[in-house]
Amino acid sequence: MTITPSDRVLAEQLADAARAAIRPYFRAEHGLETKADDSPVTLADKAAEAAMRSLIVAERPRDAIVGEEEGEREGSSGRTWVLDPIDGTRAFIAGRPIFGTLIALLDDGWPVLGVIDQPILDERWIGMAGQGTTFNGKPAKSRACRELSQALLATTSPALFGDGQLHAFEHLDAKVRSTVLGGDCYNYACLASGHLDIVVEAGLKLYDFAALVPVIEGAGGRMCDWSGDPLHAGSNGEVIAAGDAARIDDILEALACRGH
Amino acid sequence: MTITPSDRVLAEQLADAARAAIRPYFRAEHGLETKADDSPVTLADKAAEAAMRSLIVAERPRDAIVGEEEGEREGSSGRTWVLDPIDGTRAFIAGRPIFGTLIALLDDGWPVLGVIDQPILDERWIGMAGQGTTFNGKPAKSRACRELSQALLATTSPALFGDGQLHAFEHLDAKVRSTVLGGDCYNYACLASGHLDIVVEAGLKLYDFAALVPVIEGAGGRMCDWSGDPLHAGSNGEVIAAGDAARIDDILEALACRGH
Repeated sequence: MTITPSDRVLAEQLADAARAAIRPYFRAEHGLETKADDSPVTLADKAAEAAMRSLIVAERPRDAIVGEEEGEREGSSGRTWVLDPIDGTRAFIAGRPIFGTLIALLDDGWPVLGVIDQPILDERWIGMAGQGTTFNGKPAKSRACRELSQALLATTSPALFGDGQLHAFEHLDAKVRSTVLGGDCYNYACLASGHLDIVVEAGLKLYDFAALVPVIEGAGGRMCDWSGDPLHAGSNGEVIAAGDAARIDDILEALACRGH
Repeated sequence: MTITPSDRVLAEQLADAARAAIRPYFRAEHGLETKADDSPVTLADKAAEAAMRSLIVAERPRDAIVGEEEGEREGSSGRTWVLDPIDGTRAFIAGRPIFGTLIALLDDGWPVLGVIDQPILDERWIGMAGQGTTFNGKPAKSRACRELSQALLATTSPALFGDGQLHAFEHLDAKVRSTVLGGDCYNYACLASGHLDIVVEAGLKLYDFAALVPVIEGAGGRMCDWSGDPLHAGSNGEVIAAGDAARIDDILEALACRGH
């Protein structure tokens, strides 16, 4: 384990820098443009990633960096900072203050530190391997869920699933108490604080999920892929988060039904 | 027109009372229960409606009241206060601060005053017939949208549509730039402030849509049902909001395709 208290200090500095870069653009008229892949992205995204990268390069010159906007910078320390300056770009553009900045530190490909930061609401969840997750400095705990029929489930959009994945998700959806859509990374933060029981998504990139793992697991929950394996740099982007680790097998069983 | 400046004063007092009633319950462990119809509802809902009703009874004893929780109180003035203390109950329970308190005043069944209030973020949109909508006291303006292909569309959940409605919605969804899910009444508030272009929903009750109409129309947008008719107490719950009134015909044309 190469993680140190100074890594947490740096992670907080990165989140602070991203906040300062993002805030002026929220609900502002300017700053919208369109990526080649047609996903909306803002100048805030680029400004925040640039600010975080320059801090990492100055403080940890041997660490690698993976960012949504600027791609990969190689390193030699075995540690990688993974950055998503604005997770939930559509929410950001729509004026909803529940997008987030995601910051992760990977040790040999495994997430050991994660930050979910909401720049407008000044909300910050931090998780570190082997330590309790905090929400604005106070302990955050996920909640118990005795059975799927009592669970509150969230996913950003069913449109992000492929056909077989959608079928599996609908199977799970039919077993839970209630499902709420939208939310992006904010769903995982709410799960870490005990307000949601399950989040299931697919098609996530490393920068979408790496930061979530230490936050959820340090809050008492569990994350894995749709096969039940732990999430790391090589995962396929199928993600499960459960506030109560005892429900993982039920979720996997429900999602196993991918056929028609 | 029976609306007066003192109606706006009362509407603000109602929203203040709802805020005070709701805040202690947000992200609190207690207060959850289950309705007969299985929709989640909280003690906050009931406390906020009771607080608003007692103010209306004291200040406007001849006005009727329709509320989500306690049903109808008859009146003799031709005016009706329509209350939804927590629109977006699932969002509330999930810990998302983008639910809202909806307050409307109807004159002979037509919405003439509307409030969308976010109690946690201290955000309040107020619209009155013939006057400009305000967001926290400053003018709110919806934005122009030259064609559907540039539009950002929102709806809370496709699961709330019936089969024919879903088919129609998917037809519209395929024509716009991007679609964001979740959001409840907060989508309409974001549209009034120029961050979203279109919101389309169905199955809404009077207390879900009455307050939205003066807010959207006072911001320069337009609301109607899926036939293009203005919304009133007898509407069927199929709702369209457009930030640019010039896009209404395009939206109606896209939604007209309900068959298979």
